Amino acid sequence: MSRLIDELKKLPGVGAKSAQRLAFHVLRASDADARGLAEAILTLRQRLTLCSICNNITDVDPCSFCTSAVRDQHLLCVVEEPTNIATIEKTRGYAGVYHVLHGTLSPVNGVGPEQLRIANLLTRLPVVDEVILAMSPTTEGEATAGFLAGELRRVRPALRITRIATGVPAGSDIEYADEVTMSRAMDGRREV
Amino acid sequence: MSRLIDELKKLPGVGAKSAQRLAFHVLRASDADARGLAEAILTLRQRLTLCSICNNITDVDPCSFCTSAVRDQHLLCVVEEPTNIATIEKTRGYAGVYHVLHGTLSPVNGVGPEQLRIANLLTRLPVVDEVILAMSPTTEGEATAGFLAGELRRVRPALRITRIATGVPAGSDIEYADEVTMSRAMDGRREV
Repeated sequence: MSRLIDELKKLPGVGAKSAQRLAFHVLRASDADARGLAEAILTLRQRLTLCSICNNITDVDPCSFCTSAVRDQHLLCVVEEPTNIATIEKTRGYAGVYHVLHGTLSPVNGVGPEQLRIANLLTRLPVVDEVILAMSPTTEGEATAGFLAGELRRVRPALRITRIATGVPAGSDIEYADEVTMSRAMDGRREV
Repeated sequence: MSRLIDELKKLPGVGAKSAQRLAFHVLRASDADARGLAEAILTLRQRLTLCSICNNITDVDPCSFCTSAVRDQHLLCVVEEPTNIATIEKTRGYAGVYHVLHGTLSPVNGVGPEQLRIANLLTRLPVVDEVILAMSPTTEGEATAGFLAGELRRVRPALRITRIATGVPAGSDIEYADEVTMSRAMDGRREV
């Protein structure tokens, strides 16, 4: 029982209390239900894996982005999480490939560079023309982008490295923009 | 009574119902209170006016921005409303001057170019090096920026005209960015 609780606590958003509640649920469940859950977990793991090139969640390795003939393999967008890819794909404006870090640098949470999937990013650089750092403009996202820019620059000094724009969100009145956002929107102004 | 209601309805956010309620309040108020309100309106109008150069609300004409020796008089930021100046000043990163349009183009609300304070913007161009179009990235803000860019270009073809950045707001996770904002954030990426 305590082993299951410990395992459940590793899930995102599951604390000690919920882990205990979930464990009791498993205990009370029918034999078939419990086996069904366990098998679903194992099947998922058998079916889905991380792409060995870009670390995206995939059912074939390498993933369909990394083997695509219509995507620009010389343009690489680095994101924090696999879900960020969906956000960018929805724009229908990006035709390059991705690299998923699976997190951001967060010293307080014990996440250092070793915990992020940076090693297989650096090995991709020889065939890349531009790396877009698409981490969120949060404290941790900015720190990660800054660190990565340094690493990339170290490996390939002449690489084009870009950062997504911080600014007033589309459809929003500048009345509601905070100082930092407004400041970045002014700094990042572009010629029309 | 109906004259006061008509006048009150001209205030922003005051519809027929609120105008009637306010008018009844004035009717019930003491003589001193009613006279106090009327005088406050007149005094405000006597004390505050619009700067004849930039249209900002001011107690001296021209306003302190337009006569400042420390502000860059060659850099001009065009905003929709006087309150937008406070938003930009809070960034502490802008040292130029302003021009207030007092609105945005909005054909459905009967606001055309003649209703905006564009005429005295065009007369300022000879001494300006760059015009920053700091309208909100809303439909109306974008339409106004597009229209103004054309007007400015027509008067001074070589003028540097810039638009504030649209993008993911500072401190926000790209998880919550809508397609248009994310698309603009990607398009507006800058080299690091």
